[in-house]
Amino acid sequence: MSYFDAASASPLHPVARQALLASLDEGWADPGKLYREGRRARVLLDAAREAAADAIGCRPDEVRFTSSGTRAVQVGMGGVLVGRRRVGSHLIVSAVEHSSVLHMAEGWGGEVTSVPVGREGGVAVSAYAEALRADTALACLQSANHEVGTVQPVEEVAEVCRAAGVPLLVDAAQSLGWGKVDGAWSVLTGSARKWGGPAGVGVLAVRKGVRFAPREDEEFGNLPAIVAAAASLRAVQAEAAVEAARVRELTGRIRERVAVSVPDVEVVGDPERRVPGIVTFSCLYVDGETLLHELDRAGFAVSSGSSCTSDTLTPSHVLKAMGVLSEGNVRVSLPRDVEAAEVDRFLEVLPGVVAGVREKLGGEVTPPQGTTVDSLGKRCPIPVIELAKAIKNVPVGAVVTVLADDEAARLDIPAWCEMTGHEYVGAEGTAYSIRRTR
Amino acid sequence: MSYFDAASASPLHPVARQALLASLDEGWADPGKLYREGRRARVLLDAAREAAADAIGCRPDEVRFTSSGTRAVQVGMGGVLVGRRRVGSHLIVSAVEHSSVLHMAEGWGGEVTSVPVGREGGVAVSAYAEALRADTALACLQSANHEVGTVQPVEEVAEVCRAAGVPLLVDAAQSLGWGKVDGAWSVLTGSARKWGGPAGVGVLAVRKGVRFAPREDEEFGNLPAIVAAAASLRAVQAEAAVEAARVRELTGRIRERVAVSVPDVEVVGDPERRVPGIVTFSCLYVDGETLLHELDRAGFAVSSGSSCTSDTLTPSHVLKAMGVLSEGNVRVSLPRDVEAAEVDRFLEVLPGVVAGVREKLGGEVTPPQGTTVDSLGKRCPIPVIELAKAIKNVPVGAVVTVLADDEAARLDIPAWCEMTGHEYVGAEGTAYSIRRTR
Repeated sequence: MSYFDAASASPLHPVARQALLASLDEGWADPGKLYREGRRARVLLDAAREAAADAIGCRPDEVRFTSSGTRAVQVGMGGVLVGRRRVGSHLIVSAVEHSSVLHMAEGWGGEVTSVPVGREGGVAVSAYAEALRADTALACLQSANHEVGTVQPVEEVAEVCRAAGVPLLVDAAQSLGWGKVDGAWSVLTGSARKWGGPAGVGVLAVRKGVRFAPREDEEFGNLPAIVAAAASLRAVQAEAAVEAARVRELTGRIRERVAVSVPDVEVVGDPERRVPGIVTFSCLYVDGETLLHELDRAGFAVSSGSSCTSDTLTPSHVLKAMGVLSEGNVRVSLPRDVEAAEVDRFLEVLPGVVAGVREKLGGEVTPPQGTTVDSLGKRCPIPVIELAKAIKNVPVGAVVTVLADDEAARLDIPAWCEMTGHEYVGAEGTAYSIRRTR
Repeated sequence: MSYFDAASASPLHPVARQALLASLDEGWADPGKLYREGRRARVLLDAAREAAADAIGCRPDEVRFTSSGTRAVQVGMGGVLVGRRRVGSHLIVSAVEHSSVLHMAEGWGGEVTSVPVGREGGVAVSAYAEALRADTALACLQSANHEVGTVQPVEEVAEVCRAAGVPLLVDAAQSLGWGKVDGAWSVLTGSARKWGGPAGVGVLAVRKGVRFAPREDEEFGNLPAIVAAAASLRAVQAEAAVEAARVRELTGRIRERVAVSVPDVEVVGDPERRVPGIVTFSCLYVDGETLLHELDRAGFAVSSGSSCTSDTLTPSHVLKAMGVLSEGNVRVSLPRDVEAAEVDRFLEVLPGVVAGVREKLGGEVTPPQGTTVDSLGKRCPIPVIELAKAIKNVPVGAVVTVLADDEAARLDIPAWCEMTGHEYVGAEGTAYSIRRTR
């Protein structure tokens, strides 16, 4: 089995395992207590805090551990928003932040500006500069995107924020294992399971001088897990320079080969400014869940941001913000110890798997007659498959109307037009009009 | 070293360690994912949920895991308070709940009724019955007190709440390892570190039919720790009947012997209705921190609810609510594997340690002259030591006035009077009046 979903979770790094086992006996007591067992636990906690601070690039007393990366984001955002409430309640986020950031933004009572991204998933520094206001309490920007791997211009945005006196919170979940986040960020969050540490440990760094009023001050208490998280962060960062080049070459190989070997595919994300381990592509006429299932059967564990995963019924907000195809979406995120042979085998198997799913789904679709395709009540990618069949039956220049109430159609029908060269006329409610051009 | 602070944290139970190690390899993936690693993690999570449900006495789908016992309380209380906001916003807690419950109550916008306790730390069922109102959203009652071990009448209070249609949340942190909580409770919380599971895992059970709207629905994700928590809960409950009798006899031995062997001591908490492992006493003319330090040097790790611990500068709210002495407070909480010989050695050592601290502190105090003792700016137990010296220098019937601004004096001066038989006349601001009676 090849596990290619490291951006969700990684198997425990050997250093994490070792640190965890070593600290089970030393680290069970309450580090706040004065007796010997408590002091021993305190020593372990202090050492973990120093190691994490060193890896993040801040002072130990600026670091606190939380029960997850999501929790680090919640405490971090909440602490600044409350701490700076006298300045104002305006919040800036990018449109492609992790759901933990966006959920906080949704629940926030003040005004929120969502900074758009380009087709490759990156924000423009100027867009952050324009969004900043006198009453901006906080700006948030991920270091790299979790679905498509695009690296954001954090250093430049931090500079713009610094000049405006607005703290920048950086969700570094996808990049911290690869190295420090440069620049004048104010708050930084990370998640140990993303770098090979244990699940259920987050890290939150709040630079001195940032007005910060967390709602709860109790630190997360699973000390062996904290020790394992800190030790493995240091270990993976030490290996990062060598591993990054190797893994980056492998995702580059997937980017190139998939675009050639799979028909009707869109490789998404920035081809240059990207984290080493993530590559994402979308395939027309395929549904994500079936594709994941078939890849699992073929021995590959991958993830999908498309509408048909078990987690969610709406298309990925990231792909939506980028305006790219969400249909048949596959995210490959390689673990550090991945072997080149595994990647090559994936590249061999993939075209056949995609073709198989397409054949099965296409075979189930009766070619629609006339210029109106009724796809109401049908889930992606059926509306697009029906559209592709219908358009062949009308003359060039004619308009086909697709009725589709699956939310993903709003993204996938225009994306289909862009990929196939047909003209997207527009949508009225759930009716999409497409002109045959060739 | 004898570790007698099991009510704070316990060393990892062998079953917990075994389960943790076994699940490190199987349980690192995201149990929400469809591929093989995810399904394998899901199987582990489901099994842990079933084991926990079995130990708690509820259905598996009523159980969720959290990142701590405190978090379980926060999510549990918050979920009911929000879920039942149409009924009203009145909240009932006992005065001796754990700080996690009281902090939630303080932060809650609605009206809060604090149900008082008697001198032995227990609530009256009738007091809960009287507190219930038409707009009561939630009532909370611990199964047993964490500082003095007193068992609360949960089953009876649950019945009263059930009859009034008000859900009862039971913080079972101190008792769950000893067995199920009987009765018609609605929500129950627990903390794995209290029963020998890993730190940083809480459990929250919400019975079907309770209106519950948690603010966040993401479950805590450290699966190996969850597996270890559930496995060890089942293991300690299986041993509980035998161990409870043995440990209860040992705490009973401490209760009896301390009252005889240490002068000017008050053993607190209910002598009968108590959890097996906890016994608490307070010693006049001693400060808690020094006593803890000396006991640590003598090889015993204990805790203190008195004003002078590192954690807090105010006297324990539990001792305050009970109206008992907080001075020189020691909580002994025995771990399950404690040996009788350790307890006997503690009982041998304790009188000498207390006498040593008293001698040291007493020697530092110059006997005050006249009827006014100026203890302003002096920390406990100095005001009480000065009072004890001053009263010897006035005739029987005379009144001594102690000026003391340490918060603990409000509790400890009346308690001193009760223990020594002198008459507590009353207080005006920071001036306490005491009449010599013998």
